Amino acid sequence: MTDLSAIIADIVAEMADAPERGKVADYIPPLATVDPMKFGIAVIEADGTCHLAGDADEPFSIQSVAKVFGLTLALGSVGDQVWKRVGREPSGTAFNSIVQLETERGIPRNPFINAGAIVIADILLGRRQPSEAIAETLRFVRALAGEDGIYIDDGVAADEQRTGFRNKALANYMRAFDNIVHDVDQVLGVYFHQCALAMSCRQLALTGRYLMSGGRNPETGHSIVSANRARRINALMMTCGHYDGSGEFAFRVGLPGKSGVGGGILAVAPGKASIAVWSPGLNERGNSQLGTLALERLVQRTGWSVFEPLGR
Amino acid sequence: MTDLSAIIADIVAEMADAPERGKVADYIPPLATVDPMKFGIAVIEADGTCHLAGDADEPFSIQSVAKVFGLTLALGSVGDQVWKRVGREPSGTAFNSIVQLETERGIPRNPFINAGAIVIADILLGRRQPSEAIAETLRFVRALAGEDGIYIDDGVAADEQRTGFRNKALANYMRAFDNIVHDVDQVLGVYFHQCALAMSCRQLALTGRYLMSGGRNPETGHSIVSANRARRINALMMTCGHYDGSGEFAFRVGLPGKSGVGGGILAVAPGKASIAVWSPGLNERGNSQLGTLALERLVQRTGWSVFEPLGR
Amino acid sequence: MTDLSAIIADIVAEMADAPERGKVADYIPPLATVDPMKFGIAVIEADGTCHLAGDADEPFSIQSVAKVFGLTLALGSVGDQVWKRVGREPSGTAFNSIVQLETERGIPRNPFINAGAIVIADILLGRRQPSEAIAETLRFVRALAGEDGIYIDDGVAADEQRTGFRNKALANYMRAFDNIVHDVDQVLGVYFHQCALAMSCRQLALTGRYLMSGGRNPETGHSIVSANRARRINALMMTCGHYDGSGEFAFRVGLPGKSGVGGGILAVAPGKASIAVWSPGLNERGNSQLGTLALERLVQRTGWSVFEPLGR
Amino acid sequence: MTDLSAIIADIVAEMADAPERGKVADYIPPLATVDPMKFGIAVIEADGTCHLAGDADEPFSIQSVAKVFGLTLALGSVGDQVWKRVGREPSGTAFNSIVQLETERGIPRNPFINAGAIVIADILLGRRQPSEAIAETLRFVRALAGEDGIYIDDGVAADEQRTGFRNKALANYMRAFDNIVHDVDQVLGVYFHQCALAMSCRQLALTGRYLMSGGRNPETGHSIVSANRARRINALMMTCGHYDGSGEFAFRVGLPGKSGVGGGILAVAPGKASIAVWSPGLNERGNSQLGTLALERLVQRTGWSVFEPLGR
Repeated sequence: MTDLSAIIADIVAEMADAPERGKVADYIPPLATVDPMKFGIAVIEADGTCHLAGDADEPFSIQSVAKVFGLTLALGSVGDQVWKRVGREPSGTAFNSIVQLETERGIPRNPFINAGAIVIADILLGRRQPSEAIAETLRFVRALAGEDGIYIDDGVAADEQRTGFRNKALANYMRAFDNIVHDVDQVLGVYFHQCALAMSCRQLALTGRYLMSGGRNPETGHSIVSANRARRINALMMTCGHYDGSGEFAFRVGLPGKSGVGGGILAVAPGKASIAVWSPGLNERGNSQLGTLALERLVQRTGWSVFEPLGR
Repeated sequence: MTDLSAIIADIVAEMADAPERGKVADYIPPLATVDPMKFGIAVIEADGTCHLAGDADEPFSIQSVAKVFGLTLALGSVGDQVWKRVGREPSGTAFNSIVQLETERGIPRNPFINAGAIVIADILLGRRQPSEAIAETLRFVRALAGEDGIYIDDGVAADEQRTGFRNKALANYMRAFDNIVHDVDQVLGVYFHQCALAMSCRQLALTGRYLMSGGRNPETGHSIVSANRARRINALMMTCGHYDGSGEFAFRVGLPGKSGVGGGILAVAPGKASIAVWSPGLNERGNSQLGTLALERLVQRTGWSVFEPLGR
Repeated sequence: MTDLSAIIADIVAEMADAPERGKVADYIPPLATVDPMKFGIAVIEADGTCHLAGDADEPFSIQSVAKVFGLTLALGSVGDQVWKRVGREPSGTAFNSIVQLETERGIPRNPFINAGAIVIADILLGRRQPSEAIAETLRFVRALAGEDGIYIDDGVAADEQRTGFRNKALANYMRAFDNIVHDVDQVLGVYFHQCALAMSCRQLALTGRYLMSGGRNPETGHSIVSANRARRINALMMTCGHYDGSGEFAFRVGLPGKSGVGGGILAVAPGKASIAVWSPGLNERGNSQLGTLALERLVQRTGWSVFEPLGR
Repeated sequence: MTDLSAIIADIVAEMADAPERGKVADYIPPLATVDPMKFGIAVIEADGTCHLAGDADEPFSIQSVAKVFGLTLALGSVGDQVWKRVGREPSGTAFNSIVQLETERGIPRNPFINAGAIVIADILLGRRQPSEAIAETLRFVRALAGEDGIYIDDGVAADEQRTGFRNKALANYMRAFDNIVHDVDQVLGVYFHQCALAMSCRQLALTGRYLMSGGRNPETGHSIVSANRARRINALMMTCGHYDGSGEFAFRVGLPGKSGVGGGILAVAPGKASIAVWSPGLNERGNSQLGTLALERLVQRTGWSVFEPLGR
């Protein structure tokens, strides 16, 4: 195998020249103004070796990538009760579709579409104040990463709260089916703040380590979730992690992954590496255009796809 | 790790006592009369070691499992042109849904739902007579398995042709969008005969070996498809192989797999094993109830899930 | 023709004995507690003759019947601009469906489903305070009826505002498509208060007179809307006035009509009569079970259906 | 009121100059080659007075207008049993949509969309040969019109049978739900020949007389259907006669009407007139552009809309 740092350097060089960079999300001002030329990648191997390149240390809005950490927390809190309120199937529709909720009576198809993550936020809210639930999420992510520098961008959260009418529609709709039980605005407060986590590629890859390591923090040996649960979260990331582009991501990259409209992707090569990429331009399905391409290149050269024997 | 043969024996014993066996498909007589107590499993390891248990040598109608081989042949025939006519995303709907075809103008979501496989049959038909296309499929499967005993059950094919009105609807519907180009009855003739392949678990696991081995027949070293293509077929099996239960299969089993309403499942542990299970009773999504459970048990004990580090 | 008062008396007697009375709406307490045995009817002929029977003088919550008056006011306010934001076709789905809004990008199919009436409320709100828009609606209805006793039941409005999550979902969803332009809660305030109008059959039939008389109040001669507009409102009531039971109502009754979940129906026999019926039990499409049956009987005996020559 | 012949002459003159004539249906050659400048109108009053103008004597393919006569025959044959297999609600979707059939398990929403009319053809086929069912339809239409010159254009029927894949899809789909009971090709044979009826405006208006006259042929006094049934057929024409443009037609014209893709419309003013118009160009909903406009003009000047008091 070629040296990993060289591979990553090659990828960064290739991405710098890529002609098609996708379209930066523009629905709230803080996302719209991000420089589309940004590109960062961080790869942390199972032994802890960390490879960084490009803008790997620059924080960005992780947005829906946070749904992975929200789900992990909710599973820790109520266990498999989660699955009474959220499904485990790919949606077959856009990330913010409401159609499925009507035909399936308020049960979102999976925890990685907006509706599903809003139910997860409702679970996380529990009997607490929104500020407590938000603080817990932040503490959890900081602990996973072992970094106190991770923060929530309140400006991003406020902008989403002001303009997120589709999410308000989803939440109210599920409330009508009793699949949201708390005050809708409070639930969305938790949800929007979770989305507004600001992290660098390095921090994101650090946070994702438990998913490559059977649920343990490989540095501390501390168990975050059971091996079984880590495996299942990875499975959900594979089938549902890229909205209605999940099949395409599996086809091209072949790793469990979760994308966000901020242009970040967290990908997991079980037993091999925790990977974060960031490039703000999105493809037509709302996933990072160059982030996906970079992961495709990485997997081609490392053989890390879970679907081939060579890398295993 | 426990000895594999012992694991398989345990599984067969557990399945014999399983109280919930699902419901045998009853839409055509030859399927409806299969004994619901049947259970077979065959596991062929990367080194060729073959473990058989239960009714592993009894042929059954592989039905939609054949879609994997049809896709492989079509990719060999026209390459990535296939993807101009068929998508690569999970459907989010039942295996025989026609709704998606209306909203997406005759392009099926993936090659493993009925509509997609009918397009594949249209590609395989090409300029030939249906009988030639059918004969080629049979030759191909026999060659993959290295077994001449595999046959097509003409009675099953005839029954499906007589009663398969939903499939006729799908084919005519796509014909209206010019995504079927040959005579609909001829295309369906190819499709129904492919579905009517009769194979045992042993034969099915032998046939699937190329998918665990980077596209090569591990016995002969002969390349069936490129490593890249094998990887991608596995990815499609993971995200789309169990209709609207694909997410659940990934969540519980974590292997690329393809099910059929005859109760068979072909599963692939890349670099590890080609696995076939058979139990005729189906769950509510149309996938083998005990076949899925057996694979879940197998993966728990071998660590073969692609989503965990231990087995890798 | 038989004497109209005798016909109506017969109908009231028949309805008193009707075994199938439907199911009283139970989603808010004030509706759920209404006595299902109530039945009232008021028929006001073109010459002003008024026939009352049963509980014709007891006020009930007119709910969606108010959508007719809201539309009339909005047309008066912005004219045919209304039709840039609301369609004129039957919905083909339930009264509170959100599916259509997704496929048709936030444009409700007609002003008589909830989504459409919420857009109308947004138009009526204009640059005013909600209280002013609500007051104007009340003034308008009182003027049409020539009765100051008509009132808005604030308790009903408050209950709906507290529990109307589906309507909040619809409003937020359309807001996301910029088809709601004011604050969602204010718009819904107008909408819910309009629905909470409490009127008797007599008052409702009085209010509807302009629709039987080419847009004029037959008592005063005052023009409420142009004859053309009255005709068109009648047409919308015929094709869209009973949600996904509009075809059935046209088939059985053959008059323009608008129903509400309070069990009221306003029906118009152009040139003949303005008719209001009330019976709280609803059929499976959400329209008054006995109200519909009573109108069917009335039309059979008067020949007032717009689809037959005899009554014309 | 202005003299009716003068009104019609004015309309023909206006239509000759109309800049927007719509788009001629092009899916089969015999329809595509019709001259878009053609325009004909025939108005037969209740007393038998017949007004013809433009190309009122030139035969055209009546296509879906024939669904009215097919329904009338089926009701005569099996009575209200028809409604066990076909609904009575507007579809809310395009004329050839298949989506609704999936959600409503093979029951078409009404007899005037293609799926519904195919079920009607299945009823008409009964235990007969297709040729007998077709011959009966032709005899019925000739008898209604009192004209032997009406014929079925076998070339049109053959072209539709060769290319009508969507209709084949619909028929097979309903066959899968057992809502088509005969051989699909035979059923479609009846359906396509019915659609291929060639009639002039004059013949079509003559045929439609029973619908303006309470079910009787006003010339002979012979009862075709009961007054009740005539009324109900008119109601269905109002709510469902123009596919997903039925609401618009009611809004603008206000008469029961049925359109066909050949550009013909049959409209009924109960007690007043039977009207046929023909102009081959279609609007975006598949209804005659100028045919609709001509009827709007006619109703404006005659006051025949069923929704206004003046004309009644």
